[in-house]
Amino acid sequence: MKEIIGGPGTVSGLLLRIGQCVFAAASISIMTSATEFASYTSFCYLIASMGLQLLWSFGLACLDIYALRRKKDLQNPVLVSLFVVGDWVTAMLSLAAACSSAGVVVLYARDMNFCKTHPDLPCSRRKNVLGNDHVLI
Amino acid sequence: MKEIIGGPGTVSGLLLRIGQCVFAAASISIMTSATEFASYTSFCYLIASMGLQLLWSFGLACLDIYALRRKKDLQNPVLVSLFVVGDWVTAMLSLAAACSSAGVVVLYARDMNFCKTHPDLPCSRRKNVLGNDHVLI
Repeated sequence: MKEIIGGPGTVSGLLLRIGQCVFAAASISIMTSATEFASYTSFCYLIASMGLQLLWSFGLACLDIYALRRKKDLQNPVLVSLFVVGDWVTAMLSLAAACSSAGVVVLYARDMNFCKTHPDLPCSRRKNVLGNDHVLI
Repeated sequence: MKEIIGGPGTVSGLLLRIGQCVFAAASISIMTSATEFASYTSFCYLIASMGLQLLWSFGLACLDIYALRRKKDLQNPVLVSLFVVGDWVTAMLSLAAACSSAGVVVLYARDMNFCKTHPDLPCSRRKNVLGNDHVLI
C-alpha cells in the first residue's frame, strides 16, 4: 500500500491527531468554564462527544508514535478500515453535538436577544482599541 | 460498470428517491404547521435544508424515470460522482439541520420542562385507550 499523507503511522498523521486532541480539549475546557452548562443537554452531549474524540485521537496518536519509533507499518487494510470506521463515528457524533449546541446558542443569542437584554453577559463581545466593550451581534 | 442496487437509473434507486421526497415533504409540512416556527432560526434552517433535499431528490427521481423509460444507462463515472457529491452535501446539511432543531426541542422539552409548565401544549402526548391524554416525558 502506498504511503498516504496523513495516513496512520506517518509524521503528518501524528500531527493531525495531536491537532484533533488539542481542539477537543479546548472545546471541553471552554464548555466546562461556562456557568450552569450541566443543565443544558446539548452542551453535556458536546462535552461527552468531545471526550470520546479526545480519547480516540489520543490513543491513535500514541499508536502513531509507537509505529514511528519502531518503524512499523500500520497501513494494512484491516487496521486502516478500523481507523476509518472509528473516525467516521467520532466525526458524525462531533458534527451532531456541534450542531445541536450551535442551535441552542443561536436560539439564545439571536432569536431571544439574550445578549441585548443581559448586557452583563460576555457573549459576542470584543475589546476595541480604546479598551471598551462593543457588542458584535 | 456493474448494476448496483439503489444506483441511479434503477427501480430501487427511483423508489429510494421517492422515499426521500416524501420524508422531506412530511418534515416541511409538520414544521410549517407549528406556530411561530419562523422566530426560531434552527427550524427555518431545517425547512430550508429539507426544501433543498426535496428539490434534489425530485430532480433525480425525474431523471431516474426518464432513464428507465428510455432504457438509458446513467452509471458512468462522471454522473455517479456528481450524484455522490450532491447527496453528500444534502446529507450533511440535513444532519446539521436535524441536530440543531433537535437541540432546541430538547432544550424546551427536557431542560426547561415547557411541557409540564404548559400542559396545553401538544408535546409528547398520546391518546390512551380511554381517550385521555397522558404526558410521555
